[in-house]
Amino acid sequence: MSFETALPDLAFLGDRLSTARAVLDHHRQSESHIRSRAPDAVAFPQTTAEVAQIATICTRHRMPMTGWGAGTSLEGHALTPQGGLTVDFSRMAAVLAVHPEDMRVVVQPGLTREALNTELRATGLFFPVDPGANASLGGMAMTRASGTTAVRYGTMRDNVLALEVVLADGQIIRTGSAAPKSSAGYDLTALMVGSEGTLGLVTELTLRLHGQPEAVSAAICAFPDIASAVDCVTTTIQMGLPMARIEFLDTETVAACAAWSGQTMPAAPHLLVEFHGSPDGVAEQATRFGDIARDHGCSGFHWANQPEDRARLWKMRHQAYPAILASRPGCTAIVTDACVPISRLAQAVQETRADIAATPIPGPILGHVGDGNFHAILLIRPDDPNELAIAKQLSSRMAERALRLGGTISGEHGIGMGKLSHMTAEHGPAWAVMGAVKQALDPQGLMNPGKLVPQ
Amino acid sequence: MSFETALPDLAFLGDRLSTARAVLDHHRQSESHIRSRAPDAVAFPQTTAEVAQIATICTRHRMPMTGWGAGTSLEGHALTPQGGLTVDFSRMAAVLAVHPEDMRVVVQPGLTREALNTELRATGLFFPVDPGANASLGGMAMTRASGTTAVRYGTMRDNVLALEVVLADGQIIRTGSAAPKSSAGYDLTALMVGSEGTLGLVTELTLRLHGQPEAVSAAICAFPDIASAVDCVTTTIQMGLPMARIEFLDTETVAACAAWSGQTMPAAPHLLVEFHGSPDGVAEQATRFGDIARDHGCSGFHWANQPEDRARLWKMRHQAYPAILASRPGCTAIVTDACVPISRLAQAVQETRADIAATPIPGPILGHVGDGNFHAILLIRPDDPNELAIAKQLSSRMAERALRLGGTISGEHGIGMGKLSHMTAEHGPAWAVMGAVKQALDPQGLMNPGKLVPQ
Repeated sequence: MSFETALPDLAFLGDRLSTARAVLDHHRQSESHIRSRAPDAVAFPQTTAEVAQIATICTRHRMPMTGWGAGTSLEGHALTPQGGLTVDFSRMAAVLAVHPEDMRVVVQPGLTREALNTELRATGLFFPVDPGANASLGGMAMTRASGTTAVRYGTMRDNVLALEVVLADGQIIRTGSAAPKSSAGYDLTALMVGSEGTLGLVTELTLRLHGQPEAVSAAICAFPDIASAVDCVTTTIQMGLPMARIEFLDTETVAACAAWSGQTMPAAPHLLVEFHGSPDGVAEQATRFGDIARDHGCSGFHWANQPEDRARLWKMRHQAYPAILASRPGCTAIVTDACVPISRLAQAVQETRADIAATPIPGPILGHVGDGNFHAILLIRPDDPNELAIAKQLSSRMAERALRLGGTISGEHGIGMGKLSHMTAEHGPAWAVMGAVKQALDPQGLMNPGKLVPQ
Repeated sequence: MSFETALPDLAFLGDRLSTARAVLDHHRQSESHIRSRAPDAVAFPQTTAEVAQIATICTRHRMPMTGWGAGTSLEGHALTPQGGLTVDFSRMAAVLAVHPEDMRVVVQPGLTREALNTELRATGLFFPVDPGANASLGGMAMTRASGTTAVRYGTMRDNVLALEVVLADGQIIRTGSAAPKSSAGYDLTALMVGSEGTLGLVTELTLRLHGQPEAVSAAICAFPDIASAVDCVTTTIQMGLPMARIEFLDTETVAACAAWSGQTMPAAPHLLVEFHGSPDGVAEQATRFGDIARDHGCSGFHWANQPEDRARLWKMRHQAYPAILASRPGCTAIVTDACVPISRLAQAVQETRADIAATPIPGPILGHVGDGNFHAILLIRPDDPNELAIAKQLSSRMAERALRLGGTISGEHGIGMGKLSHMTAEHGPAWAVMGAVKQALDPQGLMNPGKLVPQ
């Protein structure tokens, strides 16, 4: 279908409406292996009113609308399999209001989390959710992102307090309030967070801030095997230790990170941990964690107490993805994302490790294990259909395993186009309920079609 | 409308279907001033399958279904203005499974929070949400309840991980999983929590548990005036002190509690606080709070370090409601429920205090002020329409004031029938979106009609 008839109506955007080939091609890319046709046009709105006008016009022409943040999109959420208009929020990236006294900030969706934290530096507050990539906050809300600090500060579910949303028909609604809690009706904020742009286009977010911790301490340590490392995590969480971060890297991931960063690291599974609190509190937590880790056979415990040491440590963790990609040159990755109850984590990781080992494909494992969440980065040659097939089977078995162990097919990456085939297995008839909600808010199916709900 | 034709189909419940006048009359009562007709019948199901069968039959006969937990229902949520069937969950009150290793419990909706915590005592875990009343957990989920500990442990929004829900057509769905987080589709759990039974009947809840704190310390202290007490709270929260409880009682509430419990207390606003953590952590928090409180002119700081002292302290707080009722014999109460950003709390409480003082009605104020949430208990003579009118005007002005200050008309009591008239002011066009969601899941409008959504 072509949507050329809509373009004259969108001309009010001037040069902020593009049909240039390079622009369209940029917006058909993602960090996933999923291929899609390009959008028919890309809009770069600057205000909520413009987004509302865009939605009104698109609905009149039955033209699909797909939001675009930073374009990470690990399950192809921001791709346009049915073409239409991509709404790129990169020019709506302002901090609108900081309310330090209420630990709250109002931002536009195109702002990235790193840019927000730079702006907040002088306030003594920070926005903790850290998915690794310097994602846009709108995109993070839409995929219900989490990452390394969710074990302490929660996911986007916990840190989005209110939203402004443009619905398919161009109506602007506000969900939530500036109060810390409410029981005034359905929680539309929570319904929107994780909806992947299928219910509306988010134009403003009110986010919860947290106090910058008075003291921070981090450490890295090695374990004799996967079971010891994961059991250490399980015990730590069950003891109620308020870890700020507790990240797992398997031996393969460690090898890739060591090669990438030029550091020497033992060929063993590692944990990277961080503690936040008062100086006494951090010292107490660190001591207790050290005891637990030693009970699980940890060795090579290295503290990173100075800011520059911590920065190096977390830079290594955040660059694990390019490091892993570089470990098999010329490859692309299928990034999996399972999440299970903490009591089943060791079993899930070990079964996954064995499953990957039985194939010819490398698949380093790492994860936010304090939440029971881990990823295998399946490295495949882009021109080898056999490897793609094997990786897809591994990915499917990971999803099935997560469900068998009481978990979920997606801990933090969302559904997009990549995981639609597992939704019935996870949700049963509740998936049709999601479809009914979608139908109620977007009866013509124009908001990010082809994603999340039954097609 | 009469629903007598449905009753023969419901006869499979045997003596667990009642049309006895005493039973019907019991189910037209609530802790609110709202009056309603009685239901036509009351069902006491024992299993999810029975609830599903009930829903199928009710839908066939277009008979409204209204869930019933412990019957507190401060906004008349569990009343039946259109008659129909009340589904009383008192015989579905079991703990189905405890998973201490995952800090998770699966319960039936009729279980009360106190009964749950009694069952959990030996596990070292507890369920923290404490709305004061010994409410049913199903009812608490449906009103998105919170209470004294939400400042530390969150509300029902944060502590319900998964649900089993019977929809209007009798379909049984499961929302959420046993994993600590997920980004697999719309957050139907969060949509259901706070939906007041208007989308379905909850038949099973998976709840998040927390470790019983190693050390607990509580204290009570008096302040020279409301502003000092509330500013002390604001500073405490802004400093990031992890208070487990921080409760405000104004002078009138203190007088009522003192008379009720036979204790001597200074005629001044008070704060009741509690700290949870390690022994060192609690000592550190208590010292820091003591410093802040002294800066705000606090006096008469009394520690309650022994379990029996703490039990006495919180018993006094939990009996504030009957104590206030007893302070004006023969009266009933309109319980208001405003919640504002913490920075506007002092203004909100003081304006409310002045507004009440200008009327002939007593209205002691108390609240979970760490969340910006407070209640005025407006005491009126049940036979005096003038007092009822004044109380309703006060309550309306509290709602309007909360909205003007960026807050919400309901911090934790829900909407029910009592606050429908303020929903447009709070939500604007988003209220119609709630109506569209309701229409999608319950097209015949049979689940708890007359509540929450546009009528």
